[in-house]
Formats: sequence, C-alpha cells, structure tokens
Amino acid sequence: MNERFLRQLDFIREVDKLKHIVRRSYITDGSRRENDAEHTWHIALMATVLEEHVVGEQPDMLHVLRMLLIHDLVEIDAGDTFAYDVQGNMDKFDRERAAAERIFDILPKDQGEEMMNLWLEFENGSTIEAQFAAAVDRLQPILHNYATEGKAWLEHGVTSAQVLARIDSITLSVPEIGCWAKELIADAVQKGYLLP
Amino acid sequence: MNERFLRQLDFIREVDKLKHIVRRSYITDGSRRENDAEHTWHIALMATVLEEHVVGEQPDMLHVLRMLLIHDLVEIDAGDTFAYDVQGNMDKFDRERAAAERIFDILPKDQGEEMMNLWLEFENGSTIEAQFAAAVDRLQPILHNYATEGKAWLEHGVTSAQVLARIDSITLSVPEIGCWAKELIADAVQKGYLLP
Repeated sequence: MNERFLRQLDFIREVDKLKHIVRRSYITDGSRRENDAEHTWHIALMATVLEEHVVGEQPDMLHVLRMLLIHDLVEIDAGDTFAYDVQGNMDKFDRERAAAERIFDILPKDQGEEMMNLWLEFENGSTIEAQFAAAVDRLQPILHNYATEGKAWLEHGVTSAQVLARIDSITLSVPEIGCWAKELIADAVQKGYLLP
Repeated sequence: MNERFLRQLDFIREVDKLKHIVRRSYITDGSRRENDAEHTWHIALMATVLEEHVVGEQPDMLHVLRMLLIHDLVEIDAGDTFAYDVQGNMDKFDRERAAAERIFDILPKDQGEEMMNLWLEFENGSTIEAQFAAAVDRLQPILHNYATEGKAWLEHGVTSAQVLARIDSITLSVPEIGCWAKELIADAVQKGYLLP
C-alpha cells in the first residue's frame, strides 16, 4: 500500500490513546469515571438523537459528527483539563494547539489540515455545527452528574453558578433544552448534588 | 419539556450501558480489553479517515456514521458474542433482535423505527453503507490484534482461516485494504501472533 494509507494507519493507531484519557465525569451508574473515547461516542449519538431541537438554520449533521469524533483528540497530549480548573484553563488552548499539530500531522497533509480546521471550528464555536457540537458536549456531563447524584460536582466543589456559566452553547443552539438544563441544575442544588 | 424529549433522555441514559460491554480485543498497548463504546468511536473515526478507499459508488457517510454509532447497542442486552464462538453465534440474531426491540422502543416511535432499520441494514449488509461500516468493524480488531502481538487471537486459539473468513466485507468495500489485511494476517502467522 502507498504512504498515504500507512499514514492513515499510524493515525488510527495513535488515536487509540484517547481510551486512556480519563475525564472527571462518572458513567451513569457511578462505578467509574469515563474516558474521552466513550464520551465522544456518547455525545455523537446524542447529537443524532437531539438534532430536531436545534432552532433556526439546521446544522450539517455529517459536519457535526466529524467534528465531534475528533474534538477531544488533543487531550491525548494535553490531558483532560477540568472545566472548572482556572489555572489549567489559562494555557489550555496553547497546549491543545500544539497537540493538534502533532496528532493531525500524522495524517496525509490534506486530511490533517481538514481535521485541524474542524478542531479550530469547534474551539471557535462560530458555526451552527460547532455550537450544536458544543451543546451536546456540555449537556452530557450535566446528565451524568445528575444521574450520579452529583458525584463529580461534589468531589470538586463545583457550584451551580459555575455550571450555569458553561451552558451558553446549549441555550444558544437548543434553547428549549437549555431551559430544561437550568431547571435540572436548580433541582440538583435542591437535592444537594451541587453547591448553591 | 414534552414526552418526546423525555424519551430521548431515557434512551441517552440507557445507552450509557454500552460502556460496560467488554470485547475480546485489547486496546493497542495491550493493557486492557476495550469496551463497545470506545470501539464504536474508534471505527466511526476510522470510517471518516478511510472513506477514500471505497471503490465504485461512494457511501453516504452520514448514513454510515449513524449506522456505526448504534450498531453495537444490542449488545447491552445480548452481550458481545465472540466472532469465533460457534455456539454463541447460532442464536445471536434472535437475541440481538429482541435487544434492538427493547432498546430502540425507548425512543419516540419514528426515531426508534429509524434506528431499528439502520441496525437491520447493518446486519443485512446489503447496501454500500452497511458494507463499508462492516469493513471498518472487521478491520479494527485485526489491527488491534496485530498491535498486541495477537493477544486476543492467541488467548482464544483463533486460526488464520477463521480471521480470513471474516474479511469479506473489507475485500468487497475497500479491496486494496482487503489485500493488505490478507498480507498482515499472513505476517501475523509468520510472527506467531495467530495460529496457521
């Protein structure tokens, strides 16, 4: 086979490392934390189930799925930066940008560039596809925290103000789900799953 | 929110169980076996990387990805049936069909029917999308076995004839990769990763 295929194979093997990147969120039975590969599958499937709730211009779902499938690959090098880690988030973009360059460079040039652009689009959040991708990415840990009675939230002393500050993409892309998420967050505070 | 959304949420929570379904294949560093959720993410990404190798009519990639994202959900109830388990494969379809009915029925009726049709299409393998989806599903464990020096193959006494009998979808959909896979299998026998 040609060099192009061998590069694709190297990339396919490299990305297997995403299965080692453990997030803060637990799977819904609370038995263990989930990894980025599982998380990515879950939110890609969520996107296909929830797309009807997007208001206004409809997203190109193939573009959304391509974006989601690669959006966390940078964490192979940069690790999972907890959403509420102020220090870790200061240099997060630089660390992840360097990771994106290394990992996408394994691919044939055109494919690597395409993936870099997808990742930058996700980070910038300026298209409807990126906004919807971000919405499912933000919604899933809220669902998992609620299902596990706030396990990761309580372990890290997260407050409802911090969670609310991160659901803009949900409210923007799928506003009805955004409203519902706000009620769920209020309910989580009531139940002691989340600090007020 | 309406009942439709609540059904979608129930489904999103139910499918989280796929993260518990452990396959025979190891992740590429051999440290542990992988689960269906990770596997599904990996082959969905593989499909987007390898689509250029499909010969003839090109698959609708959104359809391929939708199919891949749900193709293993039946294993939440039916478990992972090892490809080379003769006994387990005798009633596999019936067990998985019952699982599909239960799981997809959690969704609103139209979405549940759509997913059932996607799953049946994958199982039937009669469309180019189903054939390409099957090709990446079959290719990935070969890559993982080779990377781990045949760890799962040797544990289960798998022979090269058994592996070769399962790569038809690869040869059909992406013939060049099918040829390459045959060489890899022959090399694995040479290296003692796989029984002759």
